[in-house]
Amino acid sequence: MNNFDYYNPTQVLFGKGQIAALSKVIPRQAKVLMLYGGGSIKKNGVYDQVKTALSDISLLEFGGIEANPTYETLMQAVALVKAEKVDFLLAVGGGSVIDGTKFVAAAAVFDEGQDPWQILEKWGGNIQAALPFGCVLTLSATGSETNAAAVITRAETKAKRSFMNRLVFPKFAILDPTTSFSLPLRQVGNGVVDTFVHVVEQYLTLPTQAKVQERLAEGVLLTLLEEGPRALSEPDDYDVRANLMWAASCALNGQIGAGMVQDWATHMIGHELTALYGLDHAQTLAVVLPSMLRVRAKQKREMLLQYASRVWQLESGDEDERIELAITKTEVFFENMGVKTHLGDYGLNEQHMGAVLQALEEHKMTALGETRDVTLAISRQILEMAL
Amino acid sequence: MNNFDYYNPTQVLFGKGQIAALSKVIPRQAKVLMLYGGGSIKKNGVYDQVKTALSDISLLEFGGIEANPTYETLMQAVALVKAEKVDFLLAVGGGSVIDGTKFVAAAAVFDEGQDPWQILEKWGGNIQAALPFGCVLTLSATGSETNAAAVITRAETKAKRSFMNRLVFPKFAILDPTTSFSLPLRQVGNGVVDTFVHVVEQYLTLPTQAKVQERLAEGVLLTLLEEGPRALSEPDDYDVRANLMWAASCALNGQIGAGMVQDWATHMIGHELTALYGLDHAQTLAVVLPSMLRVRAKQKREMLLQYASRVWQLESGDEDERIELAITKTEVFFENMGVKTHLGDYGLNEQHMGAVLQALEEHKMTALGETRDVTLAISRQILEMAL
Repeated sequence: MNNFDYYNPTQVLFGKGQIAALSKVIPRQAKVLMLYGGGSIKKNGVYDQVKTALSDISLLEFGGIEANPTYETLMQAVALVKAEKVDFLLAVGGGSVIDGTKFVAAAAVFDEGQDPWQILEKWGGNIQAALPFGCVLTLSATGSETNAAAVITRAETKAKRSFMNRLVFPKFAILDPTTSFSLPLRQVGNGVVDTFVHVVEQYLTLPTQAKVQERLAEGVLLTLLEEGPRALSEPDDYDVRANLMWAASCALNGQIGAGMVQDWATHMIGHELTALYGLDHAQTLAVVLPSMLRVRAKQKREMLLQYASRVWQLESGDEDERIELAITKTEVFFENMGVKTHLGDYGLNEQHMGAVLQALEEHKMTALGETRDVTLAISRQILEMAL
Repeated sequence: MNNFDYYNPTQVLFGKGQIAALSKVIPRQAKVLMLYGGGSIKKNGVYDQVKTALSDISLLEFGGIEANPTYETLMQAVALVKAEKVDFLLAVGGGSVIDGTKFVAAAAVFDEGQDPWQILEKWGGNIQAALPFGCVLTLSATGSETNAAAVITRAETKAKRSFMNRLVFPKFAILDPTTSFSLPLRQVGNGVVDTFVHVVEQYLTLPTQAKVQERLAEGVLLTLLEEGPRALSEPDDYDVRANLMWAASCALNGQIGAGMVQDWATHMIGHELTALYGLDHAQTLAVVLPSMLRVRAKQKREMLLQYASRVWQLESGDEDERIELAITKTEVFFENMGVKTHLGDYGLNEQHMGAVLQALEEHKMTALGETRDVTLAISRQILEMAL
């Protein structure tokens, strides 16, 4: 097992009715800015629950954070935070709102002499302080609610970039599975695929003998296989939504990756597809991952065989066939979750690939993957296979 | 899934050479008291590594914390902390040293008007503050390095009591598996059994549909089955020790128990056996657990069948037989780890049982278990079956 440094101080309040606990976890004297997205929280009752819980706390609002939150929008929130001397942020929404809030938390107290976009340029390594914040999760997928990473897009340049810093762990995360009952099924399916690929990016890499972490990874994947289809067919089942919500957090709270070798090449290529052509994040992952696994089956061989055995119960027969069957079953699972797995399904063809490769090159994404051997040529091969 | 409140802010520095990181995680201006046990750390080099890492930090020492740490010994450390105005504690050892340090951390700043034994009387609910502390783990078993619980014994009255409070989470835990290479195999075996039973106390209870947590529980158990025997036959294998060390932390860092129904009756009965007759903690668990599972097989039926299937691959045949076989295999595993599973193996017979039951009654342990139906009569039945 590789050495690791694991730290995750986010308090998780999980279950029905936990939004009411906001009054206990936000300091009473705080001046709070609630950040949210397109307004679905006003339709599903979450907005009212938050307002009720915080009725005696000073509360401002900033709505309109978009999916794939942009620097441009978030800087408006930063201006509001500074003007109003806000000292606590509350993200209410899914991964985009929480990611955006992490950026606001850091940018609001960033070195005055510098453009906060520098946070993205330096992957967060230049963050010296951040405002405290918590979150109320309404869409489980990204795991952002219990980690210290975020992905931000610059609309102007179509650059989708990430940062990470332990100063932007949420102080608390409220996970009430009932908030996800009203989600469109497309978002539910996307969330399952997103979670699945988060696990795979940390698990289907090089063998490290990290046995508990591998079992946890497999446990999350098996839970997704069991509960994902049920979430579509039984959208009001509380335990199904609860398991998916907790699975998404566990997929990316640091426990699986501790001591494991990580990949993330699928995400890096996927980010370019979203930034250029507007595919949902999960759609890009469903498109790229199967080809990534096929093209890199040699590097990932040992773990692919373990995946075939423990996740798909493929334990006998030719090894190459087992690997291919496991990848095919993964594709079929994504399709069953309502997420198409080919670029053509989204109206993209070989003529669109040049821009993706150019963006990868511009963003220095020319040596990706756990063995740093996903060159631009390999990325091209993966994209062509995914057409 | 049941609602839960999960929080674990301990930073884990895991792997070879991590003791050197002490200089980064202890504040430079701190006045530190290092607490340790019987002195094995002076033989295996850990003491020297700690001293080297902290060579430019003010460092006092308190050795001699015993297995099953006593209030009487720990109060001497409390006096030293107060006299020397120590402001940071460092536990170097196994679960007993870390548990003891948690007590010292809380007792040193406890309400002056009260005896700190009140902390045990109130299960830690009366702790208002604690000194910060970290730990260097040298014996993986109890999970104390990444949780906020401790078990303390009052030598005078032979009362073995526990407390829990989020103020006594270690700030950091350094887990270097090489520190466990020099352990006597008896302690290695005890650690594996202790970890196993920690998982079982949270897992073999009532079904709660907490699928990720159940998979993690099963993953830790499967890891123990794979790595436990190897730790005895290949005592210098780094990955084996690393997996056992991380398994012990994951068994009791709160992740498995989140949203699950917990039992702990085996521990409560076991504590009395240790306090009265000096059995090792793990020995008491190995003795009590199999009978506990047999006597309470009806309440635990659904999870016992899942355990038989997923941990022992017993998937067909008569259900009662599968359950009995899974329990028998558990016993055999404990024996293979060098931990005997009957009271007679430790020189105890029916004449010793009265005192155990009397102690349970005195300590109000008369309605134990996940369904609170382990009465004194049931405890008697369990003990008699374990003879």
